[in-house]
Amino acid sequence: MARKAGSHAEITGPKVREAALRLFAQYGFAAVSMRQIAREVGVQAGALYTYTTDKQALLFDLMHDHMGDVLAGIAAMPDGSPGERLEWIVRYHIGYNLTHKDGVFINYMELRNLEPENRKVISALRRRYEDAVEAVLVDGQEKGVFQIPDTRLATMAVIAMLNGVNTWYREGGRLSQDRVERIYWNMVRRAVKGA
Amino acid sequence: MARKAGSHAEITGPKVREAALRLFAQYGFAAVSMRQIAREVGVQAGALYTYTTDKQALLFDLMHDHMGDVLAGIAAMPDGSPGERLEWIVRYHIGYNLTHKDGVFINYMELRNLEPENRKVISALRRRYEDAVEAVLVDGQEKGVFQIPDTRLATMAVIAMLNGVNTWYREGGRLSQDRVERIYWNMVRRAVKGA
Repeated sequence: MARKAGSHAEITGPKVREAALRLFAQYGFAAVSMRQIAREVGVQAGALYTYTTDKQALLFDLMHDHMGDVLAGIAAMPDGSPGERLEWIVRYHIGYNLTHKDGVFINYMELRNLEPENRKVISALRRRYEDAVEAVLVDGQEKGVFQIPDTRLATMAVIAMLNGVNTWYREGGRLSQDRVERIYWNMVRRAVKGA
Repeated sequence: MARKAGSHAEITGPKVREAALRLFAQYGFAAVSMRQIAREVGVQAGALYTYTTDKQALLFDLMHDHMGDVLAGIAAMPDGSPGERLEWIVRYHIGYNLTHKDGVFINYMELRNLEPENRKVISALRRRYEDAVEAVLVDGQEKGVFQIPDTRLATMAVIAMLNGVNTWYREGGRLSQDRVERIYWNMVRRAVKGA
């Protein structure tokens, strides 16, 4: 095992994760075997266990890193008015999701396949993202620039609306990403403002 | 086989479908075997094939019936102004989804596991639902009561926003279903109206 901890593991580790992410997204976690992941990477099934404890640990790591990445992104939100920050969130969320489709998909779909302790951790990270979005809505509400009947529901509504983009957006389609971001921002902006 | 076509099939058929829906939603289509569905229903695996050709046909039937049900619902939309019809859609969509959680979940998640011909059929039905929603937005736009930069994107945004309710709503939670419907209608109404 010590032998594997060098450059070998550094190269193969990410490959294992990439293969697992791709296969989980395509077939679903429960349908993919460690053997299948090993075949995809081009190593023996036994070799995988030098990189991960088991398939559950692999899923948890993928979801955990995805959420870590998402949270690092929103933590870098520039200062600005509530409106400016909400527009930034709309663009960040759409842009991030469109470049991490498999990660987004398994993070939504495979929560049910996490063991309870793991699920608690991922749900808490997800909640932190929701809280970061809600903080902007609450700030806008307190400053009187937003009129929102329920900031928690508005948070969930905005996130769901933005997540939806991944289900229909195709690169090179009718609309550029920037145009999509502007149209969504337009709708979100009006949804949180007074009638 | 003729013997099975009587009351036996009438009782077991729906049970097979209910079991398949529940198991697909819980573990994912690819991870569930016909044997597992048979065990859940309490029949021999071979007996399932008197009710369905194979697992793919079972998935297709479930998704097809779900969409048929959804479309029958929206076809019953009462007449009214664009605003009244859009409010009706918001309430119908949330109410339907909350009472058909497994069906909604597999219809979103398992499209990728349908064979190409089947996927085409389901996608076309889904498109018909989107078209019915968009027709209301277009009507409101033409009558000057809605101001929407892109009615197709607004349709997708509204549907995604409403679908999101299923991910967090719990019966007996902080908010009644009626209150949730009203808050979502409030946000949708403002999103489609002028700034």
